[in-house]
Parts: sequence; structure tokens; C-alpha cells
Amino acid sequence: MFRQVSFKELMKVFGVGAVALVLGVEWLDWLMRRLGFRRVSRLKEVLFFPSPQTCVEHLFTPARSFPCACPLPHGTETSFSRLLGHLLSACVSLDLCVFSFSHVELSRVVLHLHNRGVTVRVVTDRDYMAITGTQIGTLRRAGICVRHEMSSAVHMHHKFALVDGRKLITGSLNWTLTAVQSNKENVMVTEEPELVRPYLKEFQKLWEANDPANHKQQAAK
Amino acid sequence: MFRQVSFKELMKVFGVGAVALVLGVEWLDWLMRRLGFRRVSRLKEVLFFPSPQTCVEHLFTPARSFPCACPLPHGTETSFSRLLGHLLSACVSLDLCVFSFSHVELSRVVLHLHNRGVTVRVVTDRDYMAITGTQIGTLRRAGICVRHEMSSAVHMHHKFALVDGRKLITGSLNWTLTAVQSNKENVMVTEEPELVRPYLKEFQKLWEANDPANHKQQAAK
Repeated sequence: MFRQVSFKELMKVFGVGAVALVLGVEWLDWLMRRLGFRRVSRLKEVLFFPSPQTCVEHLFTPARSFPCACPLPHGTETSFSRLLGHLLSACVSLDLCVFSFSHVELSRVVLHLHNRGVTVRVVTDRDYMAITGTQIGTLRRAGICVRHEMSSAVHMHHKFALVDGRKLITGSLNWTLTAVQSNKENVMVTEEPELVRPYLKEFQKLWEANDPANHKQQAAK
Repeated sequence: MFRQVSFKELMKVFGVGAVALVLGVEWLDWLMRRLGFRRVSRLKEVLFFPSPQTCVEHLFTPARSFPCACPLPHGTETSFSRLLGHLLSACVSLDLCVFSFSHVELSRVVLHLHNRGVTVRVVTDRDYMAITGTQIGTLRRAGICVRHEMSSAVHMHHKFALVDGRKLITGSLNWTLTAVQSNKENVMVTEEPELVRPYLKEFQKLWEANDPANHKQQAAK
């Protein structure tokens, strides 16, 4: 009933089995994609504001050994600390498109990323970049490239950020203290490519459209 | 080599085969979900503004036989017409949370839905509901329930809408003519439950928090 199987035959069976398994898994993966199935574990998070004021020092200096002595509550995660965490996760680039920017802690995040070697590009509104407490001057003095809407008849009203070209942070929140601490606001954080891609394209469009070099050339014509 | 197969045997084989097929498909579906795969065909759309002015009459009266005689361009799809289309797709409910609302065409959409029997609820900002050309009075006179942020120290700065509790429309766009026709704005439309659910919860929270009945009771205490 049982016959002797040689080592060569056994290896052949194992080899064919392994190839069949790999091809089978590949085929199943292809079939699932073809049928509209997809592995989904992509980030989708919604943050609501106002956010309570807490200490966020640990996000800037995670390795420090002594506890922070500031009077703010510690160890609590809030919408604001989550927002900072997402921004600070940038390794390569931060593209920021924001109507008004006067929040000191958010400015600190941008400067921190710039100092860490992250490429930061900012597009803002022409009129609102001059509001009381604006951080645009601070960013420019630090060497960050900021462009503003060229037309005075139009408001650059977006409030979105792109982290490493793959994480989108967008919503109603302007980067001001009132927005973070008082207003009813929302911020969505997602890595869904179908949502991220159009914002990447829009940023690039605005970045190029508001290049001062192009406008100087046009003015000289 | 071939033997006669009775009709009963054939039916037995078909029966077992059919049950095995159904169970197999069910098992595959379960396995895919278990492994983190999911059928994805959910709406994800991003609209950018300003949007060119075109005729949107066909969205309100799709069945009319004669062509519209207005001087605006016809037959062109724009970000604004897409936005109107998404709003007009409401069958059961429209929950709207918007900072400032003075756009006549958008007001017409809300009234149209209300007249069609769609349950409309609006939450708006206390100060901005009195801006020039505000549509809040028009909605209230038509019998639509509008609530406003009760605190004067806080701005209700959201700009989102929920269609039938499953389609989320959110972004930087206020419902004003300047926002639609002049500003650089974004609107995201999605049916991703992980994104829709938090906004549904936030709307309900704001709706209850700004119920005038509760505030009258509190004031009387």
C-alpha cells in the first residue's frame, strides 16, 4: 500500500507545493482587488475643538528626564495634543495652507520641524498674514519659505496641512488661539490616498501660482 | 468505464455542490474581513473653489421639457453644481452646521429639501446669523428649525452637512457667495463611516446643547 519515496521526489513535491501556494496567494490577492476588496488599516481620525489647555512640552522633548514644572495639567491627551503629534510626525516635508496663523505653539511646531531638517512650505492669505500676533514674520525670519495669495480680491481660506505628502490634516480650524481654545471647530486627519491626492495637487497649484518670481516677471512685461 | 448515473444521484451531487459553494463564498467573505480586507466603493470626493458661475436650474427641475433661458453657461459641471447635487440627494434628513449662511442658491436647496419632506436641522453661529443677506430668517419663516450657538464668547465655526446621516460634506467653505465664487476653498464629500460617525455625534451634541428650551429652564432656575 505504501511505496518508498525518494528524497528527490519529496523535494519535488515540496517545491511544487510552495510555488502553488505563492501563486495561489498572489491570485487571491489579485482577485480580491479585482472584486473591490482592499486591505484597510489607513488612518482616519476626527478631532473636535475647543480643546482644553494642557502641557504639550513632552511632544517637543520626549527624551528629557525631569518632569515639566509648568502649572498646566500633565499627561492628558487632547484634540490639540493629537494635532501637534500628527504634525510632529513629519520626517520629510510639511506643506501648510492656512488662512490665518497666530498660534504660538503651532508656530513652534513648524520651527521645530524646520530645524529638524523637514522641508516646510507655507501658503497663507495676503490680508490675514498681517493680523495681530501673526507668526508669518517669525517663520520667514527663521528661513521658512512662505508664499501668500497674490490677489487682494480673493481670500486663501484653506486650512489644511500635508505631512510627508501622505497624511492630510484638514478642517475648519484656523491656526489661532481663539480657534483652538474657544471655537467649535473640526479637524480631520486621514491617509486615504483618494482624499490626500487632490489636496497635494491643490497645494502644488497654489504654490506655483503664488511664486513671487512669476509675478515679478508678469509685472515687468 | 462510464456507469449510468440516476437523476436522484445527479441532484444529490448538485445539491451538495451548491451548499459547498455558498459555504465557501461565505467563508471567503468572513476570512477576508478577518484579515482586514473590506469591499470599498464608498464615495470620496474633493471639490475646490472658487467655482465658475453656471446655470444649476436643471438640478431643481430635472423633468422640465423646455431649456433654461438664463444667460449663464449651461451643461457644465462645476464644484458648486456637484455640491448642490450632493445636497439634493437627501431623501430623509439634512443636518447642517454652518458658521455663516447667506448664499441664496444654497438656501434654495435647503428650502427645496424641506418642501420635499426632508427633515432639515440647522445649527449656526450667534453673531454671524445676522450678517448682511443672511438666509437664517428665510429658513425660519419657512418652518425650518434653526438653532444657534448660545454662548456669545464662542464661535460655532464648523462648516459641515450630513445627508441622510451617511454622507458627510465638510471643509473650509462657508455658505456665502464670496466663498463659492471668489475664495480658495475646499469641500470633502465622503461616506466613510469612520469619518461620518464622529460628525453625526458632534451634530447631535451641538443640537442638544443649543436647545433654547434647556436654556430657558436654566435661566429660570
